[in-house]
Amino acid sequence: MSSRVTLADVARRAGVSRTAASFVLSGRTDMRISETTQQRVLAAADELGYRPNITARSLRTAVTGTIGLISDTITISPYAGEVIQGAADTALEHDRLVFVAETSGDRDVEHGLLQEMLDRQVDAFLYAAMFTQVREPPELVRDYPFVLLNCLAESFDAPAVLPDETEAGATAARALLDAGHTDRIHVIGGRHDTAETPGGVVAGRERMAGVEAALADAGTAPVSVTECVWHAPEYGYRAVSDLLERHRPSALICLNDRLAFGAYQALHQHGLRVPDDVSVISFDDSDLASWLRPALTSVALPHYELGKTAVMLLVENRREPGPVRVPMPLRERASVAPPGHVTVRRHNQVARRD
Amino acid sequence: MSSRVTLADVARRAGVSRTAASFVLSGRTDMRISETTQQRVLAAADELGYRPNITARSLRTAVTGTIGLISDTITISPYAGEVIQGAADTALEHDRLVFVAETSGDRDVEHGLLQEMLDRQVDAFLYAAMFTQVREPPELVRDYPFVLLNCLAESFDAPAVLPDETEAGATAARALLDAGHTDRIHVIGGRHDTAETPGGVVAGRERMAGVEAALADAGTAPVSVTECVWHAPEYGYRAVSDLLERHRPSALICLNDRLAFGAYQALHQHGLRVPDDVSVISFDDSDLASWLRPALTSVALPHYELGKTAVMLLVENRREPGPVRVPMPLRERASVAPPGHVTVRRHNQVARRD
Repeated sequence: MSSRVTLADVARRAGVSRTAASFVLSGRTDMRISETTQQRVLAAADELGYRPNITARSLRTAVTGTIGLISDTITISPYAGEVIQGAADTALEHDRLVFVAETSGDRDVEHGLLQEMLDRQVDAFLYAAMFTQVREPPELVRDYPFVLLNCLAESFDAPAVLPDETEAGATAARALLDAGHTDRIHVIGGRHDTAETPGGVVAGRERMAGVEAALADAGTAPVSVTECVWHAPEYGYRAVSDLLERHRPSALICLNDRLAFGAYQALHQHGLRVPDDVSVISFDDSDLASWLRPALTSVALPHYELGKTAVMLLVENRREPGPVRVPMPLRERASVAPPGHVTVRRHNQVARRD
Repeated sequence: MSSRVTLADVARRAGVSRTAASFVLSGRTDMRISETTQQRVLAAADELGYRPNITARSLRTAVTGTIGLISDTITISPYAGEVIQGAADTALEHDRLVFVAETSGDRDVEHGLLQEMLDRQVDAFLYAAMFTQVREPPELVRDYPFVLLNCLAESFDAPAVLPDETEAGATAARALLDAGHTDRIHVIGGRHDTAETPGGVVAGRERMAGVEAALADAGTAPVSVTECVWHAPEYGYRAVSDLLERHRPSALICLNDRLAFGAYQALHQHGLRVPDDVSVISFDDSDLASWLRPALTSVALPHYELGKTAVMLLVENRREPGPVRVPMPLRERASVAPPGHVTVRRHNQVARRD
């Protein structure tokens, strides 16, 4: 049987944009669309037997068709743009617009801009953090449909969208195991257990839980875990420089691409090649991953999908509490290879294999 | 005499947020601000002799206090987040909110979202490009207050905010001249004169005009200009690898940080050190610049300032056509030094000095 006729099909047949078709078919007469275009769209819909779907219909009950995206800080991650784009694109597909504002983590600013948004009758909120963390959304937000984006609430259950960090950790560990690494795996970055974030950050705890579980399943464990700040390559450089004084790793699991960049710099300085001597695997799949030589294998943060999924929860009015986990895919490049034969020969010792 | 009492002074004295103070003093009763807070703000304003400024007053004439930011693409640059933040922060300081949407450069999408924004009575538009270029804002936008952000219109005069790329080019060239480089300067990236962008891009043409003018003032010129795509380090790597087959540069001007990263990789592979053998200077001042070893001297793109300046033009209702140029400051790090003595000795020749 023929598949369902979509709005895109109607738009194509009528030779107009999807948005224009949507306006005509939803009966909006305020959008300055020419009579000819309206006729073309209606004719195309008739010919194809188009029926609007229920999701689109339910949107008509929205008051203003606007969503307020409130973020702690937009610029901490260069990929905030992708989260915003995922949210804005998806909103527009459902005839909604997104207000974007950031609080710099300041409660007064947050309160003020919430008021500004409510003043403009925002229908719903996305409450976002730019890296995975525990946050406390203000009382005011909880009176409206809202979704936590890249954060978790501690004191109550709420709909939330988060990357599947634990599975990502397991993915990274399994990629090394599959390449034959077992007993000389070291971890750089750990849970981000530092003076400022004692006990680590959410992404760090979850990634490490996945790494350790997957290695344990294979009967092994990391030889060492260096806890450090993830913010800049410098910390990875220092951690790996120190490590190389005492160990000859076959593989490094770096907790993000910045640390991996620093690891490359330190390995290079010690005359060790990636991946011939040492394999490196990482998380985030930022631009950096493809820029390094050799290109870095990394488990991708799904920025665009996070924004998109959060808006879809609002659009579909899905109010189940608890996190929706967005998969983090492995981007395989050139930084993982079987354990380093060169290193083994150079040090005149034989690597143990399990 | 004492300086003018600001809203921030009143807010501080009253112990409330600037936004809350603004709401109270603008007489808005719809913002759920407690009676006590209102009293405190009014008392503080009295005590300090606060008078609202004219800019704030003129905003009361705005219909909805919203600005639509329409961008070709938000994610092409990881720094789009900073532009958005500069715009959103500045708007909020003036009791406005920003809608963010992107068109992917598609005219139909652009038209549709313009309609969506007008449907919500947006007062004004920012029409943005994520790298400096010539763009044609749609007719519809021109009926409203609007500012071009990071782009220029070709067919008519319009208020626009752009980085001062020409002066940035001169800044980079002068930094090398000041360090003593004169006759072995090579340029990597050029005007971005490629098959897809014949004649180059705006940023490329302007940066190169500045570079060439400043070198000409010192009686010199680049030995070579390699035209290539700027998008990834790979292109810089290839250009510099080729260059080193024929030349021994004392300094490289790379048209952005990505190309400079590739230049580092190629120099390293040829056993040349930065800055001992070859100085490198660049543009953008992305995160990459501080992550490289040694850290890269770069002329900064003022992302936050661009967003801020564009909103201020709207807020102050400044309608003069033609671009406002935002300065690009030099961020001096460790990649520029006097011409490489090591290289000179290694090749048994004496570098000429003017």
